[in-house]
Amino acid sequence: MFIVLEGPDGAGKSVQATRLAEWLCVRGLTVVQTREPGGTATGDEIRAILLQSDHLHLHAETEALLMSAARAQHVHEVLLPALERGDAIVCDRYADSTYAYQGGGRQLNMEQLAVIQHFATGGLVPNLRILLDLPVEVGLNRRHGDAGQINRIDRESLAFHERVRQTFLELAHADPSSWTIIDASADIETVTAAIRIAVVAHFHLAVTS
Amino acid sequence: MFIVLEGPDGAGKSVQATRLAEWLCVRGLTVVQTREPGGTATGDEIRAILLQSDHLHLHAETEALLMSAARAQHVHEVLLPALERGDAIVCDRYADSTYAYQGGGRQLNMEQLAVIQHFATGGLVPNLRILLDLPVEVGLNRRHGDAGQINRIDRESLAFHERVRQTFLELAHADPSSWTIIDASADIETVTAAIRIAVVAHFHLAVTS
Repeated sequence: MFIVLEGPDGAGKSVQATRLAEWLCVRGLTVVQTREPGGTATGDEIRAILLQSDHLHLHAETEALLMSAARAQHVHEVLLPALERGDAIVCDRYADSTYAYQGGGRQLNMEQLAVIQHFATGGLVPNLRILLDLPVEVGLNRRHGDAGQINRIDRESLAFHERVRQTFLELAHADPSSWTIIDASADIETVTAAIRIAVVAHFHLAVTS
Repeated sequence: MFIVLEGPDGAGKSVQATRLAEWLCVRGLTVVQTREPGGTATGDEIRAILLQSDHLHLHAETEALLMSAARAQHVHEVLLPALERGDAIVCDRYADSTYAYQGGGRQLNMEQLAVIQHFATGGLVPNLRILLDLPVEVGLNRRHGDAGQINRIDRESLAFHERVRQTFLELAHADPSSWTIIDASADIETVTAAIRIAVVAHFHLAVTS
């Protein structure tokens, strides 16, 4: 069971990932909760390069390749071993974030990005991707309400964030069997409940509270 | 004028790069001498992740993507601006090192590596590539004579280094118009002279001392 939460910063992915992981734990599963970029020592070092605000000159291709490098390490060091053990994985962002941010947002070549993702992941794809969708202004307002969280990506233009959102929606609509779109502007309990319903339905779990 | 020196560690690339850059300077050219991985602030941070000896678990795909990320930043921040100014570039390693080390040495997929190199470089290729070729044992002995220089790559097996060498030779033989192979087991002055002859011949420079 490999579940990925996707969507913009401010959509509540990390809170919902923790809630989902705990809920799966209570149901008797061994759960690995993780995130990208990061999730490994090497990935955290790469994440630090990516997120520091003073790297104004980080080029789009460099960003995409660093994200993919962190992903490659994460797949081989964390995700594949977890799946081999039979653990469930709840992951905050995965390859679709690269399509949305670097493909949609930065307008890099999608076919080249797809080759790079296949190279980085060895073809490992999630069973279920949950898109926490949110109007761009709502997500940015949530982030800007917490100045300590603002990073290099947050400072991009509204048009950039709009392209990111649209790309996520296009990816989800193109492959409805592996995606669920959830309105993340709803309150946190409603989103949590919607995620549980999606997971129960997708994995044919027995319905308990 | 974009010249790259390729070959194993221990072949004398950095010394020869400095000599070549100085020689071109004396001939009136403005020269940018640079190296990969590195050559930019971001690239140096990536290089630090790549070369630290305690990263025993760095996966082959991660390594290839980090090398390529450093290259993307180098191309956009250093190489393209230098070429736009009309400067000459002398670069210690470029994309062919990724084919040799990650493709040949680590046996990663060459077609995927080629797409990644095209993505990272935007298609920028050197005018002249100089392969400082050396029997594997000679290169390793030179490195191991200086314990402070030993890094993670040096510790790879002889078979790894043999595959790297053979891949460099195959690349050079496949495209003789852009490559010159020089026997780097010769003494330093002989190698310097051979490099100058190759540069004069390739760029049709007037012959002066």
